[in-house]
Amino acid sequence: MNTKKKIRILAPATIANLVCGFDILGLAINHPQDEMYLEVSNEPGLRITHTDRYNLPTEPAKNVAGAALLALMEEYGDAGLGFDLTINKIIKPGSGLGSSAASSAGAVVGANYLLNNHFSKMDLVRFAMNGEKVASGVKHADNITPCIYGGVTLIRSIFPLDIVSLSAPPMYVTVVHPQIEVKTSDARQILRKEVQLKDAIKQWGNIAGLVAGFLQNDYELIGRSLEDVIIEPIRSILIPGFDDVKKLCKEAGALGGGISGSGPSVFMLSKEETTARAVEQIMKSVYDKIGVDYHVHVTTLNTEGVWVKEV
Amino acid sequence: MNTKKKIRILAPATIANLVCGFDILGLAINHPQDEMYLEVSNEPGLRITHTDRYNLPTEPAKNVAGAALLALMEEYGDAGLGFDLTINKIIKPGSGLGSSAASSAGAVVGANYLLNNHFSKMDLVRFAMNGEKVASGVKHADNITPCIYGGVTLIRSIFPLDIVSLSAPPMYVTVVHPQIEVKTSDARQILRKEVQLKDAIKQWGNIAGLVAGFLQNDYELIGRSLEDVIIEPIRSILIPGFDDVKKLCKEAGALGGGISGSGPSVFMLSKEETTARAVEQIMKSVYDKIGVDYHVHVTTLNTEGVWVKEV
Repeated sequence: MNTKKKIRILAPATIANLVCGFDILGLAINHPQDEMYLEVSNEPGLRITHTDRYNLPTEPAKNVAGAALLALMEEYGDAGLGFDLTINKIIKPGSGLGSSAASSAGAVVGANYLLNNHFSKMDLVRFAMNGEKVASGVKHADNITPCIYGGVTLIRSIFPLDIVSLSAPPMYVTVVHPQIEVKTSDARQILRKEVQLKDAIKQWGNIAGLVAGFLQNDYELIGRSLEDVIIEPIRSILIPGFDDVKKLCKEAGALGGGISGSGPSVFMLSKEETTARAVEQIMKSVYDKIGVDYHVHVTTLNTEGVWVKEV
Repeated sequence: MNTKKKIRILAPATIANLVCGFDILGLAINHPQDEMYLEVSNEPGLRITHTDRYNLPTEPAKNVAGAALLALMEEYGDAGLGFDLTINKIIKPGSGLGSSAASSAGAVVGANYLLNNHFSKMDLVRFAMNGEKVASGVKHADNITPCIYGGVTLIRSIFPLDIVSLSAPPMYVTVVHPQIEVKTSDARQILRKEVQLKDAIKQWGNIAGLVAGFLQNDYELIGRSLEDVIIEPIRSILIPGFDDVKKLCKEAGALGGGISGSGPSVFMLSKEETTARAVEQIMKSVYDKIGVDYHVHVTTLNTEGVWVKEV
C-alpha cells in the first residue's frame, strides 16, 4: 500500500429502475456528482468528516460511506489500516438520484485505489451494498452498480450478484427534482405484490427492446421500449406533474423517460442536446405552473463511473 | 411479375417462448424444415395440394399456408393473380416446433419472391399471422417471425407489431419431441393470470441477460439467463421426463433450454457439437427409461429464415 496518497473522488448520480427495468437496469449521469477526499492514516480505523449542509451521521457504522468502507476494511484484513474520509455531499439525499449509493460507491472505489486495486469491481459493489443497507434497510445494488461501472448496467440477479455492463450510444439526460418528499419505503409499499401476466409480458418485451436498443445504438428502439406498464402507473401518483412532464417532453422529441429510482426526480433521455434543452424548459414550466419548487439540469450519460485523482 | 417461375421453398422449424422469453423471443433451427413448391398460374386464385401424410385441409381459407397466402393476395390487389401450392409437411403438427408457422411463413415468403419482393418482411409476418389464426385461433407471431427473419428474434410488441432481429453466436440445438399430445389451448389455460412481482422481476432480469448474452456473444451469460421462473414450472408438469432432461443436460454442459413453444418438444442449447451430442444421448435415455416414444435430433441455429430457389 502507498501510505503517502490522498485522493479526490467524484461519484456520479445514478438513475435506477430505468423505466421498464425496475430493480434491474440503471445508468450513471455526469451531473450532479458527490465529492470526497480520502487519505490513508497512520491511525487505524476510519474517521469521517462532512463539509456539507446535510448533518449526516459521522459515526462510521451509521454513515453509508462508512458502512461500505468498514466492510471493505474488514475483508482486507489489516488491523493497522486507517482512513480519513471527508464528504462533500452534492447529490441531495432523498432526490431519487442515488445519493447514498454515490457515498458508498465513491468511498470503496477510492479506498480500492489506495489499496492498489486489491478488489474487483464486483467486490466493491458487494461492500457498497452495506452502505445501502444503512440508508434504506435493503442491500440493493441498482444505484451502486452504475455508479461504480459507469454507463448502463444490468443486474441480472442480486443473489448471486450478476452484473452486466451494457454499451449504449451517447445520450443527453434531463433531470428535474421537484422539491417534495417521496419515501423509498412508501414508494415500495404502494406497489402491488402481484401483477397481470399480460402486463408482465409487455414489460419484458420492452426490457428486451431496451437492452437491444442500447447494445445496437438504436435510438428509435430505445424510445419505443421506454414504457413501464407496471410500476410507473402506481408510483407516478406520488409525483405531481408527472403525466404532463412525460407527455409534453415526448411530444418535444425526448426518447422517453420516467421516475428516477423511487422518485421524486423525473428524467428524460434525448438524442440531441437541443431536445434535452427543450425538455428542460418544459419541466420548468410544468413545475412553475403547479407551484412546486424544483431543480432541473441537463447532463449526459456518465461512462466512467467513480472518478479518482491523487491530490 | 415473372409468370414463368416455379420455386422450391424450405421453411425452418422454430422455437418460440425461448425459456424466460415467453411470448417475445424465438429462434429458427436448421432441422426439420417444411418443403413446399409454389408456382404462378394463369388461373386466378389459389390451389393447394399436400404430398405428406397429415391429411391437412386443402381448402385455402382453412389451410394455414392458404390463409396466409390469401391475405397477401388480397393486399396485392391483382384479381388475375393465381398460385399453385404443393406442401410436403415435414415438421410434425403439434410438436411445438412451429409447424403451422413454417407453412404460413414459407408460403408468403415464396409468393413475395415471385412478386419481386413487393412486400417487406414485416408485411409478410402480418400476412402469415392469418395462418396462425387458422391453426390456433390466435394471431401470434412468435414462430412466424424467426421463421421469416432467421436467427433469434424479439417481438417487442404485437399490437403494433415491433420486430427486432438479434444477432447471436453460433449454437447447437438439440431437440427431443416426445410423442405425446399437449394442446396449445391446454398449455395456455393452465397458466396463472397473475404472477408475483418478485418473480416477474427475476424473469425480466433473465430476459435482459439473455438479450445481452446473444448480442455480446457471451455464452456464459446466455447460460445463466436461460431460466424461467414463471411459465416453465407450470407447463413442464404436462411433459413427462422434463425435469430429468433439463437437470442431466445442464450437468452435461448444455447452456440451458426448456419447453419449445407450448411443448411437448424440449430443446437444449449448446456451445459445442460434442455437448449437443451428449445431450441427445441423455434425452434418448430419459425417454427410453420412462417408455415414451420420441424423435430427437441435433441441429444448429438457422440464420437465414425461409429459403427459396427457382426450379
